[in-house]
Amino acid sequence: MPRSRCPLPALPILRWLPRYSLAWLPLDLLAGLAVGLTTVPQALAYAELAGLPLQYGLYSSFMGCFVYCFLGTAKDVTLGPTAIMSLLVSSYASHEPVHAVLLAFLSGCIQLAMGLLHLGFLLDFISFPVIKGFTSAASITISFNQIKNILGLQGIPRQFFLQVYETLRRIGETRAGDAVLGLSCLAALAGLRAVRSQVPRAGPAESLAVRISHLIVWISGTARNALVVLFAGLVAYSFQVLGSQPFRLTGSIPQGLPPFRPPRFSLAAPNGTVPFQSMVQVGAAALQGLLCSLQHSSASPAPSFVSSGVANVLGSFVSSYPITGSFGRTAVNAQSGVCTPAGGLVTGALVLLSLAYLTSLFYYIPKAALAAVIISAVVPMFDAGIFRTLWRVKKLDLVPLCVTFLLCFWEVQYGIVAGVLVSGILLLYSIARPPIKVSEGAVLLVQPGSSLHFPAVEHLRDCVCSRALAASPPRSVVLDCCHVSSIDYTAVLGLAELLQELRRHGLSLAFCGLKDSVLQVLLSADLEGFQHFPSWEEAGEALGCSPRVG
Amino acid sequence: MPRSRCPLPALPILRWLPRYSLAWLPLDLLAGLAVGLTTVPQALAYAELAGLPLQYGLYSSFMGCFVYCFLGTAKDVTLGPTAIMSLLVSSYASHEPVHAVLLAFLSGCIQLAMGLLHLGFLLDFISFPVIKGFTSAASITISFNQIKNILGLQGIPRQFFLQVYETLRRIGETRAGDAVLGLSCLAALAGLRAVRSQVPRAGPAESLAVRISHLIVWISGTARNALVVLFAGLVAYSFQVLGSQPFRLTGSIPQGLPPFRPPRFSLAAPNGTVPFQSMVQVGAAALQGLLCSLQHSSASPAPSFVSSGVANVLGSFVSSYPITGSFGRTAVNAQSGVCTPAGGLVTGALVLLSLAYLTSLFYYIPKAALAAVIISAVVPMFDAGIFRTLWRVKKLDLVPLCVTFLLCFWEVQYGIVAGVLVSGILLLYSIARPPIKVSEGAVLLVQPGSSLHFPAVEHLRDCVCSRALAASPPRSVVLDCCHVSSIDYTAVLGLAELLQELRRHGLSLAFCGLKDSVLQVLLSADLEGFQHFPSWEEAGEALGCSPRVG
Repeated sequence: MPRSRCPLPALPILRWLPRYSLAWLPLDLLAGLAVGLTTVPQALAYAELAGLPLQYGLYSSFMGCFVYCFLGTAKDVTLGPTAIMSLLVSSYASHEPVHAVLLAFLSGCIQLAMGLLHLGFLLDFISFPVIKGFTSAASITISFNQIKNILGLQGIPRQFFLQVYETLRRIGETRAGDAVLGLSCLAALAGLRAVRSQVPRAGPAESLAVRISHLIVWISGTARNALVVLFAGLVAYSFQVLGSQPFRLTGSIPQGLPPFRPPRFSLAAPNGTVPFQSMVQVGAAALQGLLCSLQHSSASPAPSFVSSGVANVLGSFVSSYPITGSFGRTAVNAQSGVCTPAGGLVTGALVLLSLAYLTSLFYYIPKAALAAVIISAVVPMFDAGIFRTLWRVKKLDLVPLCVTFLLCFWEVQYGIVAGVLVSGILLLYSIARPPIKVSEGAVLLVQPGSSLHFPAVEHLRDCVCSRALAASPPRSVVLDCCHVSSIDYTAVLGLAELLQELRRHGLSLAFCGLKDSVLQVLLSADLEGFQHFPSWEEAGEALGCSPRVG
Repeated sequence: MPRSRCPLPALPILRWLPRYSLAWLPLDLLAGLAVGLTTVPQALAYAELAGLPLQYGLYSSFMGCFVYCFLGTAKDVTLGPTAIMSLLVSSYASHEPVHAVLLAFLSGCIQLAMGLLHLGFLLDFISFPVIKGFTSAASITISFNQIKNILGLQGIPRQFFLQVYETLRRIGETRAGDAVLGLSCLAALAGLRAVRSQVPRAGPAESLAVRISHLIVWISGTARNALVVLFAGLVAYSFQVLGSQPFRLTGSIPQGLPPFRPPRFSLAAPNGTVPFQSMVQVGAAALQGLLCSLQHSSASPAPSFVSSGVANVLGSFVSSYPITGSFGRTAVNAQSGVCTPAGGLVTGALVLLSLAYLTSLFYYIPKAALAAVIISAVVPMFDAGIFRTLWRVKKLDLVPLCVTFLLCFWEVQYGIVAGVLVSGILLLYSIARPPIKVSEGAVLLVQPGSSLHFPAVEHLRDCVCSRALAASPPRSVVLDCCHVSSIDYTAVLGLAELLQELRRHGLSLAFCGLKDSVLQVLLSADLEGFQHFPSWEEAGEALGCSPRVG
């Protein structure tokens, strides 16, 4: 299905439900199950990463599936908690679920507004180096954040640099059980991933035994997160039964579905600073709404603003924290052969079932296993090659990349904002100071190298004036506008002043190569002394001499 | 002298002082005197507008003159308090001189930073409609703000709409004396201004009597503010001597020069909210620094960031509030025939002298006369014709104009920020969605109408893909990049994805009209299946058929 960022004319579910084929059902069921088996362990792990009680990960994981089933336009996208979103939430919510839920509501509203107002194009201004710098840094930050759980350390601060310092300082306190388990889980996850990607799916021609063994490899690769967590849980349970416990466990998680109620807008504030707090929250949510949408601007299928906005707003009524499209689970969905967004119903149901019946079993999941789940999800996001590629292709793009990458270690938000600002300033500079080609001759032939947006016009004026008056005798000017596709009043005014200034020195200015729309605007402005010609040769002749093109 | 926004290699005073000619001295003296006679009454009036004690107007008026003498690059620009700056200060400082002085310091720092970091080009992004909307609205707001002083009303709120309501409601309380004096002053100012602009300067050929009468007209026109205030003061003094006082007077102003001390960074805060307050102040100052610089982006000579930054920073040490280039006094300076920035020394000295010796006389200046001075300074800023012009030339520009104009009545800052945002979004949209010319044929000839900045590349990709695949059989594509002047990695990546996507459907993509710099970037990116040709005809032939240009 084509991807779309605009709200659709009709409910997207109406596009595929009426022609739903029964042949799709088993495939959708299977894919939903596969995604669900990834979702449940990831949900617990990401909630830990977000600094929230673990049930909030599950609370956040079902509404997106249901909403996307109705509003989704791509068959394989899955909405839910992600590692990066959890990292962002952790820096904002500071262990306070009420904040995280309010954040989901506010960023949902912002996404809805952006979707309905067609402001999606603003996301195109997040350049690729910024995204790469951010995801690469987040991959390192998140992985390191989980080292403490692998090593069984407690009381490590959240800030990256302090974390590195404290982790290294206290590396001697490593608990052997956690470390062994965590590293084994990491190895198992990496191995299962590698095996699945290298073993091809068996064709129908092969023998049953081969096909079954292939199927086993494929299933254990796809559901590797669930398998590893399940296995680790069994090991921990066995130790518990034997009366010793070498692992830090998840601990008890409240059973049952979350209540359906609107998010709370105010905490019992100790003093009268509620309006300020809520201001900060709106600001943070605006930033968040932007960040939530980072994945939109990448190349893979992404949820539309409207669907992720609705999912977040509705999610905030069931204690969800902000969610977005998950790359990893979308890939699982696609590889499992999903046919329609209906697969999401199965995933959502699986999450609800775990909440209702399985939470008592989650008690035995070792934290080191969840840490391994997170690390194996984020390590592929690191891309060391991008530095070399940019050095080869376009060195200037290294600036936003490095700014984003480095500042993200301080605080992810700062990194993204700084990166967008830097790449924005580079963009604005190229708009405000376009290349201007000047050919000397009896008259000056000036050709702006790209479109003449209003911020560039004063620069053009200064440049033309200084060049025209520098020669003796001063020379008239032909302005070749073949690259100018539109013009606004500020630019018209700048050109009018240029005309005037040249006339004051007894010089002429002739335009050539004007597009119709530009010509019309200039004619309607009634510029004094305005003259235009189809080509620069004619313009040069009209000014009394032909320009020599250099 | 040419105007410059960049810091200069050497101290600008060294450019003109060594070759100072004695013939310039009388002209500089005269001009400095003329500007000084305008500055002193305006300084008192603007301080009243800013909601500060009147001496602060004078405190703010001398440092700019001295600094600009050293750092100025244009001979006629004068730095000092202006009506618009006073309006901005009034909305921020809320009658608290400490705030206003700190604001001068902070905005000076911001201006210095912008000057030293060469960020002046950012100001080109304030489009002409925004400036016009803002100054026109400010002209109305400021004039109406002074109506209360003309009518002798007291206790009128600051907010424009409340002001209009209260002023109309209490119009019956008008004091006859103030109203008569205020209206007479307004009429006198308008008359003197009109006479001066219509009577030409007498040539040396005319008789002495004619020349003297011309000179009188010219002097009284140029120093009209001082004359009117002086005359009004005399009238008030006469009434005082006679024992009755029909006018509201300025009242006593502390005599003497301001102390030289750094601005205070904290008030005695009642609770622990100082960091928040200072945050807000920095934010406000950043905005202010931007606003201070609005006049830069207009066509007339403006102070450089460095000189106005230094003037504001040093000014804050002598209790100045933020200052900027004054249009009115710059015009007076130019018309008085100033030759070098040395005229500023005379003006500054005149202000210092008034502070040292004349403050007791200022007691008798009626507030209505000062109000008339302000109104006559700001009324010419209103430009009703701009609405008609934009309607004729470029209707889209009416949007930022109207947004700015209307919101400025609510609060000037909001108006400017909203206007810049709106015109920024229009600009960004035109960058993100450039016109793309598509010519159908056996192959598709696609030509981006302007430069291909990174935010536009995804749009281009979607557009090309949908058009190429829409036809049956799908068609190969020639991308004519003759208008593309530069390209960055995000755009390269988008083109790579386009190539890939077309190849997946068995189609080719050929580039033509690439500029050298663009070609180099594309070659270094090693795109799979990349092919380029000098012209689209050759590209079309290479793809096996010639495109038909529509």
